[in-house]
Formats: sequence, C-alpha cells, structure tokens
Amino acid sequence: MNFVSDNLAGASAPVMQAMAAANDGSAAAYGNDAWTKRVEALFSELFEREVAAFLVTTGTAANSLALASLVQPWGAVLCHYEAHIASDECGAPEFFTGGAKIVGLPGDGCKLLPEVVTEQLARMRAGSLHQVQPQMLSITQATECGLVYRPAEIAALKQAIAPRGLKLHMDGARFANAVVALGCTPAEITWKAGVDVLSFGGTKNGAFAAEAVIVFDPADAGQMPWRRKRAGHTLSKGRLIGAQFEGLLAGGHWLDLARHANGMANRLADAVAAAGKLRLAWACEANEVFLVLPPSAQAALAAQGVQYIAWSGDALPEQERLQTGDVVGRFVCSFATHTEEIDRLAAVLADV
Amino acid sequence: MNFVSDNLAGASAPVMQAMAAANDGSAAAYGNDAWTKRVEALFSELFEREVAAFLVTTGTAANSLALASLVQPWGAVLCHYEAHIASDECGAPEFFTGGAKIVGLPGDGCKLLPEVVTEQLARMRAGSLHQVQPQMLSITQATECGLVYRPAEIAALKQAIAPRGLKLHMDGARFANAVVALGCTPAEITWKAGVDVLSFGGTKNGAFAAEAVIVFDPADAGQMPWRRKRAGHTLSKGRLIGAQFEGLLAGGHWLDLARHANGMANRLADAVAAAGKLRLAWACEANEVFLVLPPSAQAALAAQGVQYIAWSGDALPEQERLQTGDVVGRFVCSFATHTEEIDRLAAVLADV
Amino acid sequence: MNFVSDNLAGASAPVMQAMAAANDGSAAAYGNDAWTKRVEALFSELFEREVAAFLVTTGTAANSLALASLVQPWGAVLCHYEAHIASDECGAPEFFTGGAKIVGLPGDGCKLLPEVVTEQLARMRAGSLHQVQPQMLSITQATECGLVYRPAEIAALKQAIAPRGLKLHMDGARFANAVVALGCTPAEITWKAGVDVLSFGGTKNGAFAAEAVIVFDPADAGQMPWRRKRAGHTLSKGRLIGAQFEGLLAGGHWLDLARHANGMANRLADAVAAAGKLRLAWACEANEVFLVLPPSAQAALAAQGVQYIAWSGDALPEQERLQTGDVVGRFVCSFATHTEEIDRLAAVLADV
Amino acid sequence: MNFVSDNLAGASAPVMQAMAAANDGSAAAYGNDAWTKRVEALFSELFEREVAAFLVTTGTAANSLALASLVQPWGAVLCHYEAHIASDECGAPEFFTGGAKIVGLPGDGCKLLPEVVTEQLARMRAGSLHQVQPQMLSITQATECGLVYRPAEIAALKQAIAPRGLKLHMDGARFANAVVALGCTPAEITWKAGVDVLSFGGTKNGAFAAEAVIVFDPADAGQMPWRRKRAGHTLSKGRLIGAQFEGLLAGGHWLDLARHANGMANRLADAVAAAGKLRLAWACEANEVFLVLPPSAQAALAAQGVQYIAWSGDALPEQERLQTGDVVGRFVCSFATHTEEIDRLAAVLADV
Repeated sequence: MNFVSDNLAGASAPVMQAMAAANDGSAAAYGNDAWTKRVEALFSELFEREVAAFLVTTGTAANSLALASLVQPWGAVLCHYEAHIASDECGAPEFFTGGAKIVGLPGDGCKLLPEVVTEQLARMRAGSLHQVQPQMLSITQATECGLVYRPAEIAALKQAIAPRGLKLHMDGARFANAVVALGCTPAEITWKAGVDVLSFGGTKNGAFAAEAVIVFDPADAGQMPWRRKRAGHTLSKGRLIGAQFEGLLAGGHWLDLARHANGMANRLADAVAAAGKLRLAWACEANEVFLVLPPSAQAALAAQGVQYIAWSGDALPEQERLQTGDVVGRFVCSFATHTEEIDRLAAVLADV
Repeated sequence: MNFVSDNLAGASAPVMQAMAAANDGSAAAYGNDAWTKRVEALFSELFEREVAAFLVTTGTAANSLALASLVQPWGAVLCHYEAHIASDECGAPEFFTGGAKIVGLPGDGCKLLPEVVTEQLARMRAGSLHQVQPQMLSITQATECGLVYRPAEIAALKQAIAPRGLKLHMDGARFANAVVALGCTPAEITWKAGVDVLSFGGTKNGAFAAEAVIVFDPADAGQMPWRRKRAGHTLSKGRLIGAQFEGLLAGGHWLDLARHANGMANRLADAVAAAGKLRLAWACEANEVFLVLPPSAQAALAAQGVQYIAWSGDALPEQERLQTGDVVGRFVCSFATHTEEIDRLAAVLADV
Repeated sequence: MNFVSDNLAGASAPVMQAMAAANDGSAAAYGNDAWTKRVEALFSELFEREVAAFLVTTGTAANSLALASLVQPWGAVLCHYEAHIASDECGAPEFFTGGAKIVGLPGDGCKLLPEVVTEQLARMRAGSLHQVQPQMLSITQATECGLVYRPAEIAALKQAIAPRGLKLHMDGARFANAVVALGCTPAEITWKAGVDVLSFGGTKNGAFAAEAVIVFDPADAGQMPWRRKRAGHTLSKGRLIGAQFEGLLAGGHWLDLARHANGMANRLADAVAAAGKLRLAWACEANEVFLVLPPSAQAALAAQGVQYIAWSGDALPEQERLQTGDVVGRFVCSFATHTEEIDRLAAVLADV
Repeated sequence: MNFVSDNLAGASAPVMQAMAAANDGSAAAYGNDAWTKRVEALFSELFEREVAAFLVTTGTAANSLALASLVQPWGAVLCHYEAHIASDECGAPEFFTGGAKIVGLPGDGCKLLPEVVTEQLARMRAGSLHQVQPQMLSITQATECGLVYRPAEIAALKQAIAPRGLKLHMDGARFANAVVALGCTPAEITWKAGVDVLSFGGTKNGAFAAEAVIVFDPADAGQMPWRRKRAGHTLSKGRLIGAQFEGLLAGGHWLDLARHANGMANRLADAVAAAGKLRLAWACEANEVFLVLPPSAQAALAAQGVQYIAWSGDALPEQERLQTGDVVGRFVCSFATHTEEIDRLAAVLADV
C-alpha cells in the first residue's frame, strides 16, 4: 500500500482517452491547436469571467511563471515556510524571477493568518533600497498540511496585503480537492476572494502532466507568452496538454476525481477517529490525512509495507508539538485510491 | 496540404500505445519510475557506452539545459546564426545559462565549416576580461536547412575547437533523420566524432513531447538534475516521457519513422528534379525539401492551399542568392506524411 | 608615449581637489549626501529639463543598468557589432538584463544608419514567441571609431525605431568629446534628438571613477534605485562620485578637458595629413585618431616605444579594407595628453 | 551628534593623501596598475600566505561576488537572519548567484552557534532534487550586533559544516574592528580558523570606497575576474581603490583607525555602565554600542538631536526581550568619532 503522494497514479481513464482521441491528424503547433484554444475558453467559462490561461506540464513551472510575471527581481514573495515554492522546488521561483526572495512565514497547518502577514509587512520598509520589496503573497489551496482556506479567509488575506499593493497567488496543486471540500464555485475561492493568479493543478487531480496558470486580469498576463517560451515550456504539440484538460474538465470529471480522493481520505480519517488509537495532526479537509505516529504505529506500518511520508511536525501549534520518537505520517489519497486500500490501512492503524 | 513542420502530427500509433500501456498502476515519481529507468539504460545501449540521459518535454529545454550545464554565464556558444538556439528559442539559452552569449557564424545551408570556427576563435582573446569566453560549439543535425553532417565533418569541427577546450553540442531535433540519412550508428555521429552532449529529439520524430539530453561523459552531467528541476522540467509522473521513448526506441521504431519521413522528402525532391521546373535551394538529405520558388510557384501553391514556410535565403551561397520576388519554400515531411500528399504537391509544382 | 586609451590618466587637478574638499565631515550615506543631491540637480540644469540621474563608478555599470531598466529579459538591444556593450563588457548587459540579446549591426566607423536598423527590425517579427523582441537601440557617442553622430542623424535613427517602440540609449563614454566636437548643447544631441537614456561618461573625461545614467523621462527610472543597489553600485560614501562630478561640471571644466583632448587628436591628425605618409582610417572627429599602419609604420612605432591599440579594421567600408600586414592603429588623447607627446608622435609618423 | 553608522565619515587623512598621491601620471587600466598590484601582494603578506585579492568599491559587491564564485544557483547560503547579505543588500546575493537561497538562522547577538548550523543542515537533504543544496556558511565579523567571533568559535563552525562540504565566508565589513578587539593576527581569525573567503572591509574602516574579496585558496578564485568584470566592478582607473588600500595598510594605519573606533565605543559603554541607568543589549566588543532605550531615554536623545538607529531586538535572547515601548538603540563609532562627542552622548544618557 502506497500513500506517498497523489502523483503516483497515471491519468484517469477519461483523460487517457482524451489524449488518445486527440492524437489523430494534423494540428497547429505551439498552443495554437483546437484543444488548447477550447481549454482556454473553458477556463473562462469555469471561472465566470475572461481569464488568460497558460498550459504547462509541471506545477513548478506554473508556480514559477506565475510569480515571475508579477514580481520583480528585487521583489519578495511571502508564503508559508513549508510552501511548495519555498521548500520543494529547488529554487525554481528564484530562477524564474531573476532572484526574488521567498519569505517564509509561520502558520498552523501551513495556513497563513492575516495578522502574521501584516506583521511581516510592517518589518519590510516600503521603498527602502536595502530590502527586497514585498510584491506577492502566495497561499496553497489545499495547504501542504491538507487544510483548506475558506473564501472569507482568503479575502482577509487580500485585505492585509492591499495597502501595500501585493498580488495574491494561489498554488492550486490540489485546487480541485479544495473546491470539492468547500462546495463553492471556482470563482468564489479565487478572484472573487481576491486571488490574482492561480496555478490550477491537473496532474495530481488525474492528468498525466497538465497544469495551467490562470491570470484573472488578462492585463497581468502580458509577459507570460515569452516567459513560458524561454523557459522551454511551450510545447510544440500543445494538444498534449490541451487534451488532458479537456478530459478533466468535461462534465465535471475533475470534480468527480477530487470527490473520490477526498472521500477516501475522509474514510480513513473517520476510521482512525473511530478506532481512537491515533490523533490527527490536522483536520482532514481534502485528500490528505496527517497522523501523529508513535513508534509502535510506525513499526506496524513498516511491518505491513505501508508507504507514506514522514512529514515535518514544525507546523503543528505550539501546544501540540511531537513527543520524541513520534512522527507525522502523511497519507495521500488520489483518484485511483481504492476503498479496500483505505480499509486495509485503517485496520493496520486500528491495531497499533 | 500542410508541410509547415514535422511537429504538426501527433504521436505515432506505437508511441501512443506505449503511453496508454504505461498508464496503469502506481509508479515512483520524478523520473524514478521503471519506464524512465529502462529508457536511460536503453540510451546507453543505443550509444554503445554509458551515458547520462535526462528526459524533458521540449527541444528548447533540452538545448538550454545542455548548454547551461557546460557553459558559464560569461561563456560564448558558437553556432550558425540561423541555429534554433540562436533564432527560435526566444532567448532560452541566455535564460538558462545566466546570460551567456550565442555567437552566430555563417555557413552555407546552416552547416559550419572548421575554418569559419577557427577564424572566429582567433577573434576571441583567451583569458580576456573584456570578452565572453568561447566554451561551446553547437551544431544542428540535420541542419535548419535539412543538410546532414558526416562523421568526418564533425570530427573536423571538434579538432577546430579542441585547442581552446570548447565542448561540442549537437542539437538533434532531427537526429533520427540524420542517422537514417547517413546509415551510420548513433555512436558514430556523436561521441565517436567528438560530440559531448546531444539533444536527442523524439517529438518531431513521432512522440508527443519527448526529448532527451544525452551527456556522453557522465562526469559532465553533475549539474543536470538540479538545473532540470529548477527549470520545472522534472515531471512528477515521469513515465509520460519514459513511455514515449520506450515506444520510439523499441524495435528501431524511431528509425522506421525517420526512414518514412526522409523517404517522403526524397520522393518530393526527385519529383521536382524530374519536372525540371524548380531548383532546390539545398540538397534534400533528410526530411526537408527547400525549393526556390518564383512568384508563379508561390501563386500556384497558394491557389491549391498548400502550406509551407517561406524560409530565409540568407544561408544560400553568395552566387545563388535569391532573385527579387523569389522565396525559399520549406516543405517538411514527417512520419505521418502520406505518399499521396507528396504526389499531389509534386503535381502542383510540376505545373508551375 | 602611451596612446592606448583615455583611461590611463588619473583625475584632473580640479576633480582631485573636489574629492579632497568633499572629504571633511559627516555626510548622509547611500547617495543622500549634499554632493550627490547637487549633482543630480546640476544634470537637470545641464540638460534643460528634469532628469533622473544615477551615479555609478564604471561605464559598464552605467550601460548595463540603463539597458536593464528598459529592456525585458526576452528583449533585444540593437547596436553596432563593435559597440562596447557588444564586445567589451564580458556579457554585463546580458547579466544585468537577465539574458536579453545584444544584436550587432554593421556600419562604417561604428556608426549606424537608419536603413540598417529598419532592415534589421523587419527581420524581427513583432509579437513572435520564438524570437527576442527588439526593445532598444544603443548608439555610442563618440563611436568606437571616434566618429560623432549629428543631432539629425540621431533623430533619423529615432524615427527608424519609433514604429516599433524601441527606446534609444546613448553610450556616452566620450560624451564630452562629442559635445565639444559638435558645438551643440547636451540637450540637442540627447533628448531633443530622441535619446531616452544616456550613459554620461566622466571617467575618460577626467574623473577617477564617475559615470551617470541620465534618464530623460523620470517615469522610465522607477527600477533604477533597486537595480543599482542590488548590483552593488550604490556607494555608501556616495559623495566620492558626487564630488567628482561637481568638479567636472563646475564652470564647464568637463568641456575644457574634452576640448583639450579633441585638440590634441586634431593636432595629430593634421600633422599626419600634412606629412602625407599615412591615411586616416576614419575622420578625426573627437579625441581619437585611427591610422592605417603598414608594417613599416608599425616597426617605427615599436622602435620608439609608442603604445597604441591595433584596432579591428572590420568597420572599414568595403572598398577600404586593409592590405595584408596593415593594421588600424588607435591613438587616444585625453585631458592629460601633452602637446609635445603629440609632436613627438607626429614626428615618428612623418618619418615612416 | 550622529551615531547612525560608521559610513558617514569620508576617508582618513592618510587615505585621502594616498589617493591624491596616486593621481599623477599614466597607469595601466583595469587593475593592472602598480597600486593594485602592490596591494594584492600586501594582502598575501598580511595573511601570511598567498591569497587572491579582488578590489571593489562596495561591501555588497564584495559579498555577492564572494558568494557567487563558490555557490551554484541551486545552492543555499546559511547565515544569521539579520546578516547584511540576508537583510540589507536588496537581493544582491540572489542576483549575483543566479538565484541561490539565503537561509537565515537564529542566534543571540547575530552570532551563529555550531549546533544551530548542524540542526539546519540536518533539515536539508543532501542530494535532494527538491531542495536547494547548502554550499556556504556566511558569518559576519564583527556581527551586526557588534559581537566578535573568537578563532575557536569559527573553527567550531567550520567543523559543523565540514561533513557537508560547505565553504565558509566571512563578511568583514568591520574586520579591522574585530582584529583589534581580538588582538590576534588576521590569519588566525580567517583561514587558520577555516575561513575560505573574506570580504575585507576598507570603507567603514577609513577609506572612501575600498573593499576586497580575499580568496584564501587561489584555486577558488578562477571565476572572480569574469564575475567582477560583468558586474561592472572592474574599475578602469583601478588605482583609485589600490591607493586607498595602500593608505590603509601602510604602517598598520587600518588597525590604528579601528583601535580608535573601538576605543570610542568602549568609552561610551563604560560610561553607560558607570551611570547605571541603561543596560547594554549586547556586550560592546568592537565599535558599536547597543543600548536598550526606554521611552524616557528615547525622548532625551531626541531632545538633544542625537541620531542613532533603532535596531531590531529580535536577536536578543528569549529572556531579555524588549518591554513595550523600549527599542534597541545602535550607536556606531568610527575613526572620525571624537572623544567629546562620546562624552556629550554619555552625559545625555546618564541623565535619563
């Protein structure tokens, strides 16, 4: 049983079929194909306003392009210190932006609070030549700890940054999971709440390699075509990504996939709670379950060959810090997770 | 009829099947999957020596990573002035290298001659603080004008740069076409002739989005994993590229595809020669035909809705410069080009 | 006798005195001192309009900052192929701009003609994703071959780039020499003729290390403070540069210095013409003399220990190309050149 | 009375005289002059081994070049979070390195402890593609809080980083003050304790604009000439910096200047201690005094027009955190500080 990540599965069957169906015949290159064009229009529909969409193959590329197009080389991007852009992209944001600074802030469960942002901004002198200038706030939806920002929480963050003119970026590697969890529209938790640019994740959701940078005000998107091209992210046979997104978006398939993944995670969380043996590090709000694992649980999981990631406990609130020997185990569910896997894992965990 | 490029088709049927077959089940992320691992081994087999292979989705990424890993920010890369890295990648090499200089040299049919390289090197003072330092020579195989370097020609270029210690890069966007045209082994026209690093093109050959940087001395490859990652080119579901290459390389499929494409181009070139109406700008050596098109031919093609690219005539030899009104028409054949398309085009051209 | 460059002398006596006089007492750091503030105002006076001035210590820094503040990483800067920014700054413009492309154009005596610029622009497709976008034209005043652009010539170049919206940069490493040669106002050969940003050279003119980026529309200067700071070019004891410029600008001292240097060069050119032995490669318009030196002249100069630079003859017009064995000798005069040095050199040259 | 910084004074009289004396006659450009050559030799003498020295005009340039020459774009530099490179250079290190990450660590008085470094290194997985790789530790001597590292402390830090192969950089903006405070040789607190590269500060010490990157193993210095040139930091009239350093180093003048500055700071600290009204935030070990200032003291200072910087109290130990309303006042002494200024300030502070 492997719960290491939601990037271990391939593509969902409908996405794979869409790719195969897109394979016939000749098509214009470099994103001028019909699939890409249709997807760009679909995104405007999905978000209930005209947006500029840029398809790429990785989340790191999507995030880095989103940042670079709106942040100067002497700018700073505020985010949680465990944010993917801060900790897991090997400096890609710094590369794409020409050396901007990623400033990590604390927050329980990798969620940022407006007061933390306000406090940090107060420390960064506006107009100072000696300091990088804060130009963007980046939040992850769902967060790296599996929590979900509510629209009002996002709006409050936007309010915190508005006086200094920062743009708001959302890393939506698990955007679909968040939308399903919230039961709201994509518009409500993005631009209506103040998000300026979104990394819309398709890969973890059920595609093979499909991410989109969604720029809500097309006027912000002027640099993107060149930035994407010179990063080597403009595919000549662009329909490869276009078709994946068509497969995902058709008939709400992307939400069905996320609903399944979230459901599996909730099933696991519920079983753990019912068993009463282990505590959740953070509430299960999307498709990830984080459990505080004492050594006995770690041993039991190892004995059964269950794979998961031993996550940092740094983002736990002060009063819930880990005991020596404990780790936080991250268990991620995807569109391809089976009920029986969950039940077998739950049985292992109930037994510790 | 569309002869604009060999990137208009999708993937060949076997490649598409390989992708579909790779879709099942769980696989390790970030290139640690079985497909990628097998392909890395296949490349060592193909090149008859241990090589380091890095899979990416675009040729621009492959070229730029190849350059950046072996050239300093104050380095210079010599190439033909119409080379893809000089003219068609929107500054991607400059971005990836941190500002190295791409120095364009002349050469008939986009082929570089050793004496031209030697002469340029003489102009670049070794060790001068005021000038960028030549660190790489990049050649395109087949060239942007459809010509093919022979092993001895490559060896002569290597000899020209050896005294100054430049590395030799080959942009092999159409490497398969060149291998087929030469009837030699991949090893013979690469490392055995002095090539240090190769951009092995799969996309134009018959994949959807599959390119590989082949580093012949693995000691040269130390930076590549990080450079690729922070450029956003390390796919989480890496088997997407691995599977395509498995499809291409299995049973020499990649050579069959190239043989077909070359055959179509030759069929067209032969027909044009037989008709005696138009002259070839350059010999048809791979999968492209470049024709000098007088206005009447241009009109005839337009009338029939034939699409092609009006290529620059700059790389024509002095004595063959274009007459006013003439253009060079580029007609590219791919694995998906049909004999009947060629014959219909040939008929149009015979009629001008 | 050393005619290698006008950067071999130290500072003129008044400049040195201004530095010494500025040494007393405490002053605000980072360019907020009184000297810098006064100089910033002086530049506005000198150019008869409000300008933004940024003091730095080297011409390479001034040029690179000027370019970077107005050109995107995917932009192109057109200039003569022997321009200092293209050939003598070791890729500094590429470093500061984040990888923009310096595109070298031909031109007799390193002067660009509008038709050459227009032709080049026609080759660069506006809006193409595959090519860098032309965003600046850079000219050198006086040119690397010692020639001077007239106001009307600059205006014609501006007209050539206006339809594509390029900015016009002037590398004024020898700006003072050009102003004196033309007998016009600094305004007339800069913003009134269409120049957007000027590298105002003080070092060759008679300072130790004092250059200024003059931005004629302060709205173009928004990025400069940060770009300068993060390039390490914001001196803490900024009065060091401020004082040098005060020394230069006070009472037209900078023009007196240039007048002397130009006068020395003209004296040499006149003597050579009178002797009738050697021909000038280019007219002597500022403070440099370029002579076509046959082997006998080279030998005579070597015998007398005369130092000069053997310049490229590439920028000579077609019909005046060098004979085998000939070189172009560059002889540069500065504020510190003595009449007797000129006369001794003239005597050597009259004797060949 | 202005105690804002030690960069408010000009140059010491001997330094100014050295500059003036260096002004006569012609000299080779770009650092090939006699002054620069002599200074390079002087540094080898001073450090009792052959070193490579690179003169520049600012500390930001020195630090950034030192980092860039030994850290890859995907590298990380560990330092205190209040280090100048982290907080006061507007992202210059990121610019020069091509996007490396500056990782800020905690430490009382801006001093780093080996265990903090070890702990941070443990969090950074060696060889991970997802994380930047730690490649350098940078410490400031004296620290931003005016404390001094002992040789044994530096050696212990070197030991902490040795297993991971990090280089050790010392930002010596106040190196002279530290040498005087420690009463040891320059060698003892640099390479003998494990420092690989030093930013040797001359400007705050008593020069106008003179800093040097000292590379203790010349094999580490191979990139420096090009990096400096393309950053615009290779002065054509290089003797300007060379002469300043000659002035500083001749006859131990630099140490005399630092001795004076330290003495002034100690005089102030002693007076404050004697008065018993205020407490020092950190011990006065070099030329800076940090005082915890309650509102009454702030008011008294304001009333007397005393200028100082209200420093962050973040680097205070847990148990000494500031009371509401208190600030840490930084009072910096330089070579130019007068005894009477100190006594007047002491009187003000004794009176609160």
